[in-house]
Amino acid sequence: MWPFEHAQYATMLSRSLLDRLLQFRSERDWAQFHNLRTLSTSIALEAAELLEHTQWVRDSELEQVVTERRPLIEQEVADIVILLSYLVNDLGLDVEKAVEAKLALNARKYPVALAKGSAKKYNEF
Amino acid sequence: MWPFEHAQYATMLSRSLLDRLLQFRSERDWAQFHNLRTLSTSIALEAAELLEHTQWVRDSELEQVVTERRPLIEQEVADIVILLSYLVNDLGLDVEKAVEAKLALNARKYPVALAKGSAKKYNEF
Amino acid sequence: MWPFEHAQYATMLSRSLLDRLLQFRSERDWAQFHNLRTLSTSIALEAAELLEHTQWVRDSELEQVVTERRPLIEQEVADIVILLSYLVNDLGLDVEKAVEAKLALNARKYPVALAKGSAKKYNEF
Amino acid sequence: MWPFEHAQYATMLSRSLLDRLLQFRSERDWAQFHNLRTLSTSIALEAAELLEHTQWVRDSELEQVVTERRPLIEQEVADIVILLSYLVNDLGLDVEKAVEAKLALNARKYPVALAKGSAKKYNEF
Repeated sequence: MWPFEHAQYATMLSRSLLDRLLQFRSERDWAQFHNLRTLSTSIALEAAELLEHTQWVRDSELEQVVTERRPLIEQEVADIVILLSYLVNDLGLDVEKAVEAKLALNARKYPVALAKGSAKKYNEF
Repeated sequence: MWPFEHAQYATMLSRSLLDRLLQFRSERDWAQFHNLRTLSTSIALEAAELLEHTQWVRDSELEQVVTERRPLIEQEVADIVILLSYLVNDLGLDVEKAVEAKLALNARKYPVALAKGSAKKYNEF
Repeated sequence: MWPFEHAQYATMLSRSLLDRLLQFRSERDWAQFHNLRTLSTSIALEAAELLEHTQWVRDSELEQVVTERRPLIEQEVADIVILLSYLVNDLGLDVEKAVEAKLALNARKYPVALAKGSAKKYNEF
Repeated sequence: MWPFEHAQYATMLSRSLLDRLLQFRSERDWAQFHNLRTLSTSIALEAAELLEHTQWVRDSELEQVVTERRPLIEQEVADIVILLSYLVNDLGLDVEKAVEAKLALNARKYPVALAKGSAKKYNEF
């Protein structure tokens, strides 16, 4: 049953900060609203808010945007990390292990010899 | 200049795994493609892939989807974490501190007395 | 009840093509899966697929991408239009009227004197 | 060169309303900001705003949300249609023809015999 198990694995943040996130949710009785769909949707919406900061930005203006909007960008990143932490916690997912497995898969899909200096997708090689 | 500083702060993963992500990128000469816009876009696209797993799913089917698709869901989460790790690294962002600040802000926007048991947005109270 | 009324207003496509879209859906008994959430989610997912075509593209490469990938881009646009047509139909929404109202609102939010040549959002003026 | 040709094909709206959209853009000198990437990004961002209306909504609450939030939903749909109209115009794309082609493709990918009453993706049959 959701949440799937206690989050001994969620290593994206310090254990104490994750505990504070979980306490924040528990005090507001918000776990009832969290499931794979609502958290995935929320992550997508926060990712859209992050993306909004470069919506109309030309390549030549990118660095200036980062400098000027850094506090706002940090907030959007924090929002994504918070939601991702709830999801990872509720799934009982070992992030470190999941990333290691994905990195190994990516290494096979994007061998250095083919991928070096190229932004092509693996199915375009 | 992007990347803004070396990532002594990126605590989402172990330092050694982050180093392996950075080495993976460096071996492929991919840092040239990474900036605020391309990484934000990529995070949004991976969030969409995660969201796809519940695209047509009814409330009553959510738990079954998590059980059946767990390996795929873990891969999508890993993709988001990897891209977020590059972004956090390149911004020189202290995730722990950013999340603490956002949590404090959220506590002000969503006081327990108003927010308990409610999925309303703060501007709807 | 969803769908809210018959779509005498959905003018995004010719009436005959909209009828073929509705017949396509009816033959597959797919209306049961369509509601505000699933259609909004699907539009967001198709928008992500369109966005993927410029994920890593520099300003200077944009025109070349349009030329080379035109057939794929047309398919993604068509996917969005199809889903939007179902949504507009099911909401019984008068697109022409809705766009006219939004255009009037945008004219107030972005007066020529302030907005000319600027990509700023209305709340940044 | 972008925009690719004059939009004799953009049939999503009446010709006169499309002309007013183009005039709105021209008066503000905004065509300089519009290309495949910025318009795709903007469509994705507006799709996210539409999606936000069902972010935390349970199946049983969906109809109520449509009833209560209809004016806001219509605005979000209008935003997507406006951006899509600019994109279709600038690409010189024949929407009617593109949708017809996609519908024919979908009919091959989702034959009635396999797809009837099923929300599976074509690669899951």
